[in-house]
Amino acid sequence: MYWYGEWVPRRVDHDERRTGIARALWRVAEAKGLDRVSLREVAAEAGMSLGRLQHYFGTREDMMVFAVEFMNKRNVERVAERMLAMGGQDPLTRLRAIVMEMLPVDARAQAGSLINVSFLLEAARSEPLGEYARKRALALRGLLEGQIALAMRAGRLDPRLDPEAEAALLVGLADGLRAGFHLGALTAERTVELMEIHLARLNTPV
Amino acid sequence: MYWYGEWVPRRVDHDERRTGIARALWRVAEAKGLDRVSLREVAAEAGMSLGRLQHYFGTREDMMVFAVEFMNKRNVERVAERMLAMGGQDPLTRLRAIVMEMLPVDARAQAGSLINVSFLLEAARSEPLGEYARKRALALRGLLEGQIALAMRAGRLDPRLDPEAEAALLVGLADGLRAGFHLGALTAERTVELMEIHLARLNTPV
Repeated sequence: MYWYGEWVPRRVDHDERRTGIARALWRVAEAKGLDRVSLREVAAEAGMSLGRLQHYFGTREDMMVFAVEFMNKRNVERVAERMLAMGGQDPLTRLRAIVMEMLPVDARAQAGSLINVSFLLEAARSEPLGEYARKRALALRGLLEGQIALAMRAGRLDPRLDPEAEAALLVGLADGLRAGFHLGALTAERTVELMEIHLARLNTPV
Repeated sequence: MYWYGEWVPRRVDHDERRTGIARALWRVAEAKGLDRVSLREVAAEAGMSLGRLQHYFGTREDMMVFAVEFMNKRNVERVAERMLAMGGQDPLTRLRAIVMEMLPVDARAQAGSLINVSFLLEAARSEPLGEYARKRALALRGLLEGQIALAMRAGRLDPRLDPEAEAALLVGLADGLRAGFHLGALTAERTVELMEIHLARLNTPV
């Protein structure tokens, strides 16, 4: 099985190369927005020729889908780590933590404004990216829905809530507040405060 | 004052031309998104030469700012007309109508998806457009804040609400739900339903 022993490191190298290209894409996108990223520029940023990059990604769209999935995987890992670290916490605290992860308002998030806004535009134009964005939105709603149901059962949220609707409202509000923050119409503090007001309203009156 | 008599019709002609160009810009933007609109294409759509268009708008940004202000003025007029038509209505009904104007989910709104998303990107890249978008967001919040305060005084909304925060929450939620609708993650019916759930929560329990 010598060919197999050969194949494994090559495969790893292939994946590493693609990850390196995805990282280069995000560096270019942070400065210019995803919509202005070209294969040529990403190749230059990754320190390879255009021909070599096209060996890993045939089209700009292939590269974009991989880079978005790569970034999303990292975000999911961050949320998962945060949830693990909160193992002993009650469901409402966990829900709050997930919601605040959806509202990144630090300097790093400010730098990512162009990426966030331009991603929506790419998703509107590319069927695979749009499909991916819809799936991601559904997965996020599903995650929140479960946490809301748990918090209701634990008597930490109003038991008359509709978990599915509340999850969709949380995603919508987080998206809109984030847009206001990126536009400069809301400060970081105000963005978080507004979400706290919304969350407080879902609590069971003690 | 012959020069003055001369000047008036010319001025009118100038404004009409600029309005015609703005309309041509929106037709191009509906198909391609604002970010891909060029002076050359708008000139072609408006049936004039590039040089003639540049007589009215020196730069792409000038044209963009005028077109956005023109569209916004039409939207404000639509809301004002709707509010006039509801002269006798109570403040909560008026508030609800304004909020629903912020959530256009018909076929026409679906066609405007690219414009909506690409406008945010243009606003992130152009200082005058960003400033304009921030001012518009503040004006909208101010309008809602007043209606919320009136509805609270009329005993139609919970008197313990903070009108400023509730106005910002309504704008944020409308922006986020609209983004979900444009992305195809929310149906038109669900988008409106979710806003109704939010509004119902602000009502004074009877």
